[in-house]
Amino acid sequence: MRAGSAAKRLLVGRPLDSGRLGETLLPKRVALPIFCSDPLSSVAYATEEILLILALGGLAVLHLTWYAAVGIVILLLVVVASYRQTCYAYPGGGGAYVVSAENLGRTAALTAASALLIDYVMTVAVSVVSGVAAITSAVPSLDGHAVALSVFFVAVLAWLNLRGVRESGRWFAMPTYAFIAVIHLMFAVAAVRMATGSTIRAESADLPVHAVSTYSGIALVLLALRAFASGCTALTGVEAVSNGVPAFAKPKSRNAAMTLAIMGALSVTMFFGITVLAMVYEVHVAEDPTELGLAPGTPMSTALAQIGRATFGDWHILFYVLQAVTAGVLVLAANTAFNGFPMLASVLGRDRYAPRQLFHRGDRLVHSNGIVLLALAAIVLIVAFDAELTRLIQLYILGVFVSFTLSQAGMVKHWRRELAKPAGAGTRGGRAGGVDRRGIHRRLAINAFGAFLTAVVLVIVLVTKFTHGAWIVVIAMPVLFAGMKGVRRHYDAVSAEVAVGPHERPRALAENHVLVLVASVNAPSLRALSYAKTLRPTSLTAVTVAEDPADAEVLRATWVARGIDVPLRVLSSPYRSIVQPILRHVREAPERKGDAVISVVIPEYVVGHWWEQPLHNQSALRLKTRLLFMKNVVVIDVPYRLASARELAAERAEAERAEAARAAQDADEQS
Amino acid sequence: MRAGSAAKRLLVGRPLDSGRLGETLLPKRVALPIFCSDPLSSVAYATEEILLILALGGLAVLHLTWYAAVGIVILLLVVVASYRQTCYAYPGGGGAYVVSAENLGRTAALTAASALLIDYVMTVAVSVVSGVAAITSAVPSLDGHAVALSVFFVAVLAWLNLRGVRESGRWFAMPTYAFIAVIHLMFAVAAVRMATGSTIRAESADLPVHAVSTYSGIALVLLALRAFASGCTALTGVEAVSNGVPAFAKPKSRNAAMTLAIMGALSVTMFFGITVLAMVYEVHVAEDPTELGLAPGTPMSTALAQIGRATFGDWHILFYVLQAVTAGVLVLAANTAFNGFPMLASVLGRDRYAPRQLFHRGDRLVHSNGIVLLALAAIVLIVAFDAELTRLIQLYILGVFVSFTLSQAGMVKHWRRELAKPAGAGTRGGRAGGVDRRGIHRRLAINAFGAFLTAVVLVIVLVTKFTHGAWIVVIAMPVLFAGMKGVRRHYDAVSAEVAVGPHERPRALAENHVLVLVASVNAPSLRALSYAKTLRPTSLTAVTVAEDPADAEVLRATWVARGIDVPLRVLSSPYRSIVQPILRHVREAPERKGDAVISVVIPEYVVGHWWEQPLHNQSALRLKTRLLFMKNVVVIDVPYRLASARELAAERAEAERAEAARAAQDADEQS
Repeated sequence: MRAGSAAKRLLVGRPLDSGRLGETLLPKRVALPIFCSDPLSSVAYATEEILLILALGGLAVLHLTWYAAVGIVILLLVVVASYRQTCYAYPGGGGAYVVSAENLGRTAALTAASALLIDYVMTVAVSVVSGVAAITSAVPSLDGHAVALSVFFVAVLAWLNLRGVRESGRWFAMPTYAFIAVIHLMFAVAAVRMATGSTIRAESADLPVHAVSTYSGIALVLLALRAFASGCTALTGVEAVSNGVPAFAKPKSRNAAMTLAIMGALSVTMFFGITVLAMVYEVHVAEDPTELGLAPGTPMSTALAQIGRATFGDWHILFYVLQAVTAGVLVLAANTAFNGFPMLASVLGRDRYAPRQLFHRGDRLVHSNGIVLLALAAIVLIVAFDAELTRLIQLYILGVFVSFTLSQAGMVKHWRRELAKPAGAGTRGGRAGGVDRRGIHRRLAINAFGAFLTAVVLVIVLVTKFTHGAWIVVIAMPVLFAGMKGVRRHYDAVSAEVAVGPHERPRALAENHVLVLVASVNAPSLRALSYAKTLRPTSLTAVTVAEDPADAEVLRATWVARGIDVPLRVLSSPYRSIVQPILRHVREAPERKGDAVISVVIPEYVVGHWWEQPLHNQSALRLKTRLLFMKNVVVIDVPYRLASARELAAERAEAERAEAARAAQDADEQS
Repeated sequence: MRAGSAAKRLLVGRPLDSGRLGETLLPKRVALPIFCSDPLSSVAYATEEILLILALGGLAVLHLTWYAAVGIVILLLVVVASYRQTCYAYPGGGGAYVVSAENLGRTAALTAASALLIDYVMTVAVSVVSGVAAITSAVPSLDGHAVALSVFFVAVLAWLNLRGVRESGRWFAMPTYAFIAVIHLMFAVAAVRMATGSTIRAESADLPVHAVSTYSGIALVLLALRAFASGCTALTGVEAVSNGVPAFAKPKSRNAAMTLAIMGALSVTMFFGITVLAMVYEVHVAEDPTELGLAPGTPMSTALAQIGRATFGDWHILFYVLQAVTAGVLVLAANTAFNGFPMLASVLGRDRYAPRQLFHRGDRLVHSNGIVLLALAAIVLIVAFDAELTRLIQLYILGVFVSFTLSQAGMVKHWRRELAKPAGAGTRGGRAGGVDRRGIHRRLAINAFGAFLTAVVLVIVLVTKFTHGAWIVVIAMPVLFAGMKGVRRHYDAVSAEVAVGPHERPRALAENHVLVLVASVNAPSLRALSYAKTLRPTSLTAVTVAEDPADAEVLRATWVARGIDVPLRVLSSPYRSIVQPILRHVREAPERKGDAVISVVIPEYVVGHWWEQPLHNQSALRLKTRLLFMKNVVVIDVPYRLASARELAAERAEAERAEAARAAQDADEQS
């Protein structure tokens, strides 16, 4: 334990005071990389996902990329506009769960929560795996270690987040801005080179694209829709900003909405720019190298890596910079989920849809349990899907659009309720309080269109992706839903069960019969007996188990010789177990009736080293868990701290004093 | 827990009464397969191990097999004769640990114990892996699944042993006898066929044996000694009988000695017979198929499988019977260790060289902890060595001869002490009491020769095997030794620390200040408060942590409204933790001084389903482990059993009543 505690302190830093939470409010320039690294970074793979699907139809259908891209840009603009409304309406944070809960009821809220929980996990898994693909595109020799690298990055992210959101922000700003800068630099270089007459072609431009089958009519439309659905990964994570409004510096809603607008503009520019270059350079990609006429197992670069290599040149330093910042922003995009998931889990814990301990904050003002849970789930997915991006991405988009649709539908309800209020009454919170009824009509219209469009895309995603992996999500969501309902039902049942009438008050019980377990006459036993006497019990008996009859005889003799004034009861142990005879003795005790209780006092050896644990108290532990199940039985642990435990306690106390002194000093410096 | 308990009952059967231990005494016909399956089954691979080593020297040196075989037969006879003396001298069980402890002191005893613990694990690993090799020799398609099959068999053995020794005996008798029968049948068929003029040759007789290098002079002698050392695997497990004397039916010593003699005769016959056939059939084996001029990766049959196939013919049913019973007896040979290891661990636990809980017997009269530990260690070895017999066997023989040598040396000391006694005084136990001094001189001579011979072999094994893997054992033994010493030192230190003066007696403490932790006014809290009042404490306070200040205000209001006559103290929680504020409150309490104690009463929710556990008491658990480290603090668990827990308790009580009724009925039937 000693090592564990020191390691925790070293890893997650000193605890922050609740009163200092204000300090962690984020200005826009810090909020953008924290909340927008997910949507911004997804441009790194969105184009490629479109090309991968259309490649199934061969060279002839690749031009459909344009339609898919335009559709995605329009969708992105609509969704951003919709979520800006949410920022104003919910300055306290308008995640899909909150908006659905307030406007659409429990079922919608839990549906949204199921979708969000899955999406947070998928965000971590997909972003990290895609970031690792950027690395292996630049350093092909790492190709075989994708799983290990991905797991490593997830672990690093979890560690950074356990240290707290503000420090994360500082670190996380750099790669996001670098990514934006390098992508725009790439556009500039490409524009200049093409303007000066160069013809730039991708390394894969001359590879034949073998159609898997011929698509026409309905099949072709479905293929195009599937490509569009795949490209919709560009939209993932847009919700994070509206969810995180309370973390923004004031004016919160305005800053959040502004950040969303900036993010939207950057996303559209980068996504469309990359798509244009992919088409102009004739980038060809396929899930399997054989479809491009290559030998099986040939390592393939990502579409973005191909564009970068074609623009900057193969061994040019800028190509490596591009790959590095792409990997950086993608791995950090997972951070969006590390902010969102524990927050949602905490809200679910508060509402008793998840274990209560998810509601507790840890030392570092973050929901440590949620962070650890998220990291573990993502690691399981990465390992299970062998870090293959194309297989993971099939599970990704469905949940996103479920929460989009529910969130927008909830907003429609919200604005209609606002309209139903008598004119002049303020709307809820923030700047929205000042808008007139025409403004509300406009917001209603935006959200209604957003809800309609995202619902249509949801159906498209469901139809085109179902057999490709989305069915897993279709199963997982109801399972999570039922699980959360079950947890709530359990808590409600327990609350009802433990409720007491208005006139019940605590009153002393009539009898307290105390049993003290002893194995020999030593300090822990005497301490336990002394404590038992302090309780002034109705009856007091020392109990021992005669595992070895000779030992028991020695104990009895010592007992008599010392003149200990507590009767000693020796229990025989026919099955040579310590636990069973005691349980039987307690179970059959006539005293355990009516208004009486049996208190079992266990002298416990407290040790300071982890390796000393298995040498002590093993039977006591098993005994306690069984005794707690018995009616009218109470278990009393009288600890006897061995030297090693006293040392550990002293060290801990010293560390906590030093901690408090440092915290006081910090507070002085800052005031 | 419910499922766990039911599963345990289903898996290990009903508990046995200590008084019924007598029933499990074993007649010779049952003791032979239980205690001798290890030495008997090792003839299945001992010959092959000799051939494998000599193959390194090429065809020219294969004739040295005869010398190695004769040496091993002599050694086997001497060791069996030596251990027969132990059976008489130690009717209470004369394992190397006991004999060394009594005659040579602690250091020798712990050395023997280290060697034995390693050997038990090796017995399980080697026997099971070799048994699986017999299976894959007959069914080559299973070749790739050796690790999985081996792990499976270890798990099955552990399960059978958890059910108890007697039932194991019944099951385990069959394959051992079948193995003996089929091997002798094979000898008969071979004799008849050869007598009638057939020439039988092994499938590998025509394969060239490529010498790895040329051996002559000292190198050749060393190679021969190494082959001899490898063949000494035939001796492993001989000690089991002398160790298990108390499990034999009366007269214990005589029956055990007789069983040893039968085992010795069978071992010599089978080992020598198999070696003769291997030489006559010209069986050629090598670690690597390329040394036999085969393609890399060609599956190779074991030597015994080749002999069986040559004798019975390739597809003859008897060949498959041979492989099946060989696999059967080898997998069951591991059972010797499953008898011996927990017994040794229990003795070490009794002497405080191992955690005490290894001393406790489980429900089924067996040392469940030891069985589980042994199975896990063997599985780790099998997985680590990829189920490769030739690599595992290098670790095997060293420990065996360490314990042989110590055991025999201890016996020499024993007999010399007997001789030193005045004439006419009875020697310790059994038939030995009646032997005269000439008889003792004879026994002394036998054990002295045994000690000398096994010491010589120990040196040979150490020298020839050290670089081939035995170094691992040379490292592991001192580690185990130091570990056991450390455990004993810890227990001794604790005993000294908790010792009390002769006049100390339990006496009531002056003050008992009681804190009751509450989160809301409900049945568990009221129950805890009622119990606290029963203790008639010096002071009584209810304590709550204001994780959410609003909730705390509600609680305070309810408290006042109900007129609960216990003061409520609300602790602020700046770090939003439940545990820290309570710890700080207790740490800083002025009452925790001198002859006073603070009792912290925790209302605990007891639930009946395992999945309900994470929904409750998580903070209480962390709190308890920290409170126990504080001076003058006692923790009191007041359980509140929810409906599911009451159901579980009722089910358990019902099951235990039924159990008791069945046990009583069994006892009636048998009396």
